[in-house]
Amino acid sequence: MIQKLIEKIKKTNAPIVVGLDPMMGYIPEHVQKKAFGEFGETLEGAAEAIWQFNKEIVDKTYDLIPAVKPQIAMYEQFGVPGLAAFKKTVDYCKEKGLVVIGDVKRGDIGSTSAAYAVAHLGKVKVGSKEYAPFDEDFMTINPYLGSDGVNPFLDVCREEKKGLFILVKTSNPSSGEFQDQLVDGRPLYELVGEKVAQWGEQCMGDDYSYVGAVVGATYPEMGKTLRRVMPKSYILVPGYGAQGGQGKDLVHFFNEDGLGAIVNSSRGIIAAYKQEAYARYGAENFGEASRAAVEDMVTDISRALAER
Amino acid sequence: MIQKLIEKIKKTNAPIVVGLDPMMGYIPEHVQKKAFGEFGETLEGAAEAIWQFNKEIVDKTYDLIPAVKPQIAMYEQFGVPGLAAFKKTVDYCKEKGLVVIGDVKRGDIGSTSAAYAVAHLGKVKVGSKEYAPFDEDFMTINPYLGSDGVNPFLDVCREEKKGLFILVKTSNPSSGEFQDQLVDGRPLYELVGEKVAQWGEQCMGDDYSYVGAVVGATYPEMGKTLRRVMPKSYILVPGYGAQGGQGKDLVHFFNEDGLGAIVNSSRGIIAAYKQEAYARYGAENFGEASRAAVEDMVTDISRALAER
Repeated sequence: MIQKLIEKIKKTNAPIVVGLDPMMGYIPEHVQKKAFGEFGETLEGAAEAIWQFNKEIVDKTYDLIPAVKPQIAMYEQFGVPGLAAFKKTVDYCKEKGLVVIGDVKRGDIGSTSAAYAVAHLGKVKVGSKEYAPFDEDFMTINPYLGSDGVNPFLDVCREEKKGLFILVKTSNPSSGEFQDQLVDGRPLYELVGEKVAQWGEQCMGDDYSYVGAVVGATYPEMGKTLRRVMPKSYILVPGYGAQGGQGKDLVHFFNEDGLGAIVNSSRGIIAAYKQEAYARYGAENFGEASRAAVEDMVTDISRALAER
Repeated sequence: MIQKLIEKIKKTNAPIVVGLDPMMGYIPEHVQKKAFGEFGETLEGAAEAIWQFNKEIVDKTYDLIPAVKPQIAMYEQFGVPGLAAFKKTVDYCKEKGLVVIGDVKRGDIGSTSAAYAVAHLGKVKVGSKEYAPFDEDFMTINPYLGSDGVNPFLDVCREEKKGLFILVKTSNPSSGEFQDQLVDGRPLYELVGEKVAQWGEQCMGDDYSYVGAVVGATYPEMGKTLRRVMPKSYILVPGYGAQGGQGKDLVHFFNEDGLGAIVNSSRGIIAAYKQEAYARYGAENFGEASRAAVEDMVTDISRALAER
């Protein structure tokens, strides 16, 4: 799957991923109204609004981008109907040829990790049949429980040729509370990064591993170090745009080959129509606003990479 | 909710929680057959088998125990129908008066953590209506992202009078890879434990906080230290039974008042009928076997506490 991701990045010339995190506040009135008209102000109504919102954004941007990253929390908060909308979104994005990164940040041990791996990347047995429950291409996971929490995910990745992005250094202000603590003079996130590199060696594509890392755009210096620590790992970089990261902060996350990183923007793309820069589109044309925001983001990152 | 948990522990005299982790391999043939007969070998069929299995175990044990802990991964692996069975299980256990600890190990930042908190403990707004999506009483969370990952959960806990168990030292063999790393001469799990104590101060019940910790039964010495570090935090202790923990390992997790800890057993209870000790019940009477296993677990722990 890392090969497909890299091919798509090269083809679109856009090392970006659109975060499909459909908070209700982002969904234009007219989309909500239509969904509630059909299903009432119910969890099913909310799920329908989310799905219609996502579909429009995907329809207007899929030819420009390699991948999407739906954040499952935004669906889970609408219960079982919300999770059905997550599944529908994953399926639709795959139909459109997009690589789907399930931002689920799961993490547990042994058979429980195996169950999460199966849920999101693998197939589950029911009697003599097999089903792929959510069937994303990549998923994000949390490393706090160590190798025997991660290994069951690696097993499923090898079997299914799918991939992981493991949290290493997250984009939020207090991520340093534990991640930056010094262990023998080196921050914990470096140790985690080393482990990611080791885990990744067991899951190699042609040049890059199926096992990548999450490192926030808000910490460019740490990105530089981690790029060296994990040379074969793709880095998924959140925190661009709304969280404060800019194109120039991102260059160190990339390798010399111009690959090795994929930058996420969620709010900055899906709620673009709410920003002054794209207000001219209006809420009715929120999908067009998202398309324009994608184009601007690609330009920003390409320029920064060209100028480095 | 911590008050309800403590009251129920006192009433049942059983500081234990039954882990409802219904792996397919645990579910007796006749239960699977019936479910598949009705729904086919489908995700819906698997979800029905899980639900019927859980219901029987709850019916046969609810009067002996204060709480259950469904592990959501075991439901999530059966996709949307599996998650509907999770919800049905939560609702049924609450109807039976049990405290429900959602073992979901979620963790993210800001609005994403808030969405998870709402999904599992809170209420979500849809237009002018409000819904409680999964509505557990407690949930487990992962601390790797630091305070601004945890705070949104604390906010919902205060609002709803619900609670958390935060991963501190997990029961698995490789939990030390990151958790035991020394920071200024002290292991990381102690730092996390201190943070849990601080977070807990903002969420106090009468004697204990709504904010507890997860510390594995497999590390009794660390449990002893962490008991001191977090005197007001309830400790959820996994790893009893199948993972190797025994009654005598558990005494240090409890305070002098005999409270402060709740010990989980999953496989040891729900798949008791597969153990030699309970084989006499047969697969047909798996619920009775679980009841006997609960009684034995309570005796083991009570004896260990009496002898300390």
